[in-house]
Amino acid sequence: MSLMEKHRARFEGARAACRSRACWSPFPELPGKYPDADAAQAAGRAAFEAHLGRPFALAQPGEIGRLGEEVSPYTQRPLGIDYPRADLDTLFAAAEAAIDAGWAAADPETRIGVLMEVIERLYRRMFEITFSVMHTAGQSYNMSYAGSGVNALDRGIEALVYAHDAMAAVTRRATWQRSFGPATITLDKTYRLVPRGVAVCFTCASFPTWNAWPSMMASLATGNAVVVKPHPATILPMAISVEVFRAALADAGFDPNLVTLATDSVAAPIGKDIVRHPRAAIVDFTGSVRFGQWVEKNAHPALCFTETAGVNTVVIESCDDLEAMAKSLATTLCMFSAQMCTSPQNIYLPATGVRVGRGAAARVAGAAEVAGALAAAVGALVDDPRRAAMILACIQSPASLALIAQLREDGARRGRVLLDSRAYPHPEFPGARTATPLMLGVTTAERDLYGEERFGPISFCIETRDADAALAAATGDVRAFGGLTAFLYSTDEDFIARAEAAYARAGAQLTINLTGPMPLNFAAAYSDYHVTGLNPAGNASLTDLAFVAGRFRIVQSRRPAAA
Amino acid sequence: MSLMEKHRARFEGARAACRSRACWSPFPELPGKYPDADAAQAAGRAAFEAHLGRPFALAQPGEIGRLGEEVSPYTQRPLGIDYPRADLDTLFAAAEAAIDAGWAAADPETRIGVLMEVIERLYRRMFEITFSVMHTAGQSYNMSYAGSGVNALDRGIEALVYAHDAMAAVTRRATWQRSFGPATITLDKTYRLVPRGVAVCFTCASFPTWNAWPSMMASLATGNAVVVKPHPATILPMAISVEVFRAALADAGFDPNLVTLATDSVAAPIGKDIVRHPRAAIVDFTGSVRFGQWVEKNAHPALCFTETAGVNTVVIESCDDLEAMAKSLATTLCMFSAQMCTSPQNIYLPATGVRVGRGAAARVAGAAEVAGALAAAVGALVDDPRRAAMILACIQSPASLALIAQLREDGARRGRVLLDSRAYPHPEFPGARTATPLMLGVTTAERDLYGEERFGPISFCIETRDADAALAAATGDVRAFGGLTAFLYSTDEDFIARAEAAYARAGAQLTINLTGPMPLNFAAAYSDYHVTGLNPAGNASLTDLAFVAGRFRIVQSRRPAAA
Repeated sequence: MSLMEKHRARFEGARAACRSRACWSPFPELPGKYPDADAAQAAGRAAFEAHLGRPFALAQPGEIGRLGEEVSPYTQRPLGIDYPRADLDTLFAAAEAAIDAGWAAADPETRIGVLMEVIERLYRRMFEITFSVMHTAGQSYNMSYAGSGVNALDRGIEALVYAHDAMAAVTRRATWQRSFGPATITLDKTYRLVPRGVAVCFTCASFPTWNAWPSMMASLATGNAVVVKPHPATILPMAISVEVFRAALADAGFDPNLVTLATDSVAAPIGKDIVRHPRAAIVDFTGSVRFGQWVEKNAHPALCFTETAGVNTVVIESCDDLEAMAKSLATTLCMFSAQMCTSPQNIYLPATGVRVGRGAAARVAGAAEVAGALAAAVGALVDDPRRAAMILACIQSPASLALIAQLREDGARRGRVLLDSRAYPHPEFPGARTATPLMLGVTTAERDLYGEERFGPISFCIETRDADAALAAATGDVRAFGGLTAFLYSTDEDFIARAEAAYARAGAQLTINLTGPMPLNFAAAYSDYHVTGLNPAGNASLTDLAFVAGRFRIVQSRRPAAA
Repeated sequence: MSLMEKHRARFEGARAACRSRACWSPFPELPGKYPDADAAQAAGRAAFEAHLGRPFALAQPGEIGRLGEEVSPYTQRPLGIDYPRADLDTLFAAAEAAIDAGWAAADPETRIGVLMEVIERLYRRMFEITFSVMHTAGQSYNMSYAGSGVNALDRGIEALVYAHDAMAAVTRRATWQRSFGPATITLDKTYRLVPRGVAVCFTCASFPTWNAWPSMMASLATGNAVVVKPHPATILPMAISVEVFRAALADAGFDPNLVTLATDSVAAPIGKDIVRHPRAAIVDFTGSVRFGQWVEKNAHPALCFTETAGVNTVVIESCDDLEAMAKSLATTLCMFSAQMCTSPQNIYLPATGVRVGRGAAARVAGAAEVAGALAAAVGALVDDPRRAAMILACIQSPASLALIAQLREDGARRGRVLLDSRAYPHPEFPGARTATPLMLGVTTAERDLYGEERFGPISFCIETRDADAALAAATGDVRAFGGLTAFLYSTDEDFIARAEAAYARAGAQLTINLTGPMPLNFAAAYSDYHVTGLNPAGNASLTDLAFVAGRFRIVQSRRPAAA
């Protein structure tokens, strides 16, 4: 049985879900529902711990040294793992050779079968990956498992579906017949799908697998090779991923150098070298706005797909239930200490107040009351260290602590500190790098404070003249500084319609009036599109046809049909 | 009946053809088969002549002057037409307003219906466009009608098909339901297709409509507006096109400023300004390699699709019939004086000779004999001015005459002149700018002579050690300098297979062993892909999914379903 046949049912389930965009996943989202969960978790923890303090063996070419400077946000101690430092020319040459050694020529279904096998193997190492994400990105155990684990796997399968569909849309053979004057010409035509070449996949420090797996899948399914360039703070999850890809490729008879790892350090970054490498044909980038914009401007002639960051906005016009809204927003402001590209930052409140409830029972809550309710809801969520640990988890980078300190000072001077940030004591990891959210109240005069992504648990309540001004300011932020998600509370259908139109033009994915247990910024694979490409927060969407269709090209040959 | 219903049968015929890539067109390719051909041609000629010596009225905003410097290659006299010179800011602002005034919000089928109506209206003005292409680009009457007329219309419909399919792949609504703990969350999700914004379409001097119509259709179908920037030598065909688009849009109730014309002159070009305009969201470029590369590097953040030029190559390893091969190659070298992006330029011949025929009857023709046969075949085609006029037509730009003179001198000094170029007397237009082909014989030591596109009727016979060296040199040229088409003659299936693989990797569309009445470089809409995007001759293909899928983005909104 081919690998594609082995995984056919799962793949077809994903295809159907991509079409309907209904809820679907082949994987249970709770770690406890993993097959033989306790044993699997213990084995995964042991596998993770076995990496610590040791060289990570990765039998790839071009090793010219070793490096590794990862520090666990949970212990603030080095992981002590070192990885190969590779000669880029050697990696690119090996990747091109691997493309030519059968990968480019393989049938798309063969390639996708191998990559579905990679998905299965990553799933088998899910807990090892979970712990590796925890101790590099600083995510909670549950988020590492769900968001960086099974949901990222789903995103990977989704990319395979779109790659499959884009390639299946191309007829591979045709017979073409036409008369030219009295003669009839009959041509046999062959259409080959040709990969671009070597793709480079940059992965970020706080959420490495979620964009990486789909990008890698999109490039590989269409016949390319991938060199993975992880953020130096978060190498381990990608090193494990590369190992899994290489083994599955080799077991299927392909050259494992289709996937390699290119590490660097903060002191000696290789990002520009790798983007400018003459053999780089595709660049997938997840990371900072600043470097992302450099990549977009300098990747040419490589094709370039970016997801950077932006200022995700909230507009509160009116609501049914102030407490329920505040609790939902608070949860989202706290989730992984707002170190997600989907976390909100700029919360716009009309100075005219927020109508709460409907009809005769409605009342108007002042902007200060709403801001206070939000701050109180956040405060309540993080008061108990056990709960704080589950929701806030750790701060990935010490730079975020410095930013909090700076903005606390700026905010106090130029506005109000609605809720101060402090370290909370993590119940399991006394050495954890932690911070509760900082919430600042400002006016639109302080746009330089909130007019860029402030990475970490920092948010702003911004008063505007009225609700229309709130909407205009919020969507203006998205257009100017980028934005991936947006959140609206309104009981006025006219206002909702205007907000939908304005956010559609600005290009942020909008969630309206959601309360209850679902995290507001939860993005479901197969259903929610991630990034629009319409504003500075990124030029690509995970995942649509445009994300895959350019990764391969069509080259034809034609010749007279045999008589 | 909606416009889509009116044109449904034609559109579905095109969709089926794009899938099967079999031969299909709704339009007769011979002018004589046009409905009521004689009357239509006479009316078209009269309509063309009515433009001469007069201002071209185009009721578009932002007119700040008039300009026009077109010269007919058939008479070398000015057409005397002037066109609006427009303020770019005004054009872009009007285009954005037009997008927002209903075009972006219209259903894709509505937009495509309007654009199919544009196709029909362009077809009704086919002879007016034919004469306008003749007297700007210098094409023959038949090529103007077929290549720049109906075949370009077919390319336009093809782009509509791909735009339709890319948009139809996106579900517009979904209901998503999942449990979070004990609660069940049900969300209604809406997916909007949002255009990028204002597209800029650069059109070239020698073949304006062929890339322009599909690019315009691709942008408009996906909800964008288009500002057309024609080459100053060839404005009239695009001015007529813009007029037709505007009228059809207005008649369908849309803002005609979705399509406008931005003219310039050779002395005061606006190309860089229009690419760098902050509201430019998409750039389609057809033109020179040099400016095309500037566009690719500087279009960011606009999306950019280019077709520039390259050195199309011929490899002759062996053949069945030397005379038939020579005649076919000669025809393609002469067609429109090789002023087509698909015309061959570099003909590689093995010094070991070319095996002619098969089995016992085979003989080896020396490289000099083959080159001589080619030159003789070209000479025979252009000997008679009547036939020369039909196939060579005119030289679009005086710069090509200067280039011929320079290369005649360089070629004589560094190689051999296999066939000299001369003006031929055009039987109908005594003032026509004409030149018969210049053929030079060189070795690979003169790569600087043939290592770039030499626009016009200039070709090189290049001797290499053997056939493998010929293939390596030819595909090396494609990778280094770009190449759209390639031509191979070989009776050795192993060599053919190697050549197919090598040209696939280099990214040139290969035609093998074709002889007879079909022009070797004929590219059939719905069947032949034009440009691969794999080499410097352009980054996009007309037309595949990647050509359309990025021109719109997907923005969603989601909210709790009504209980």
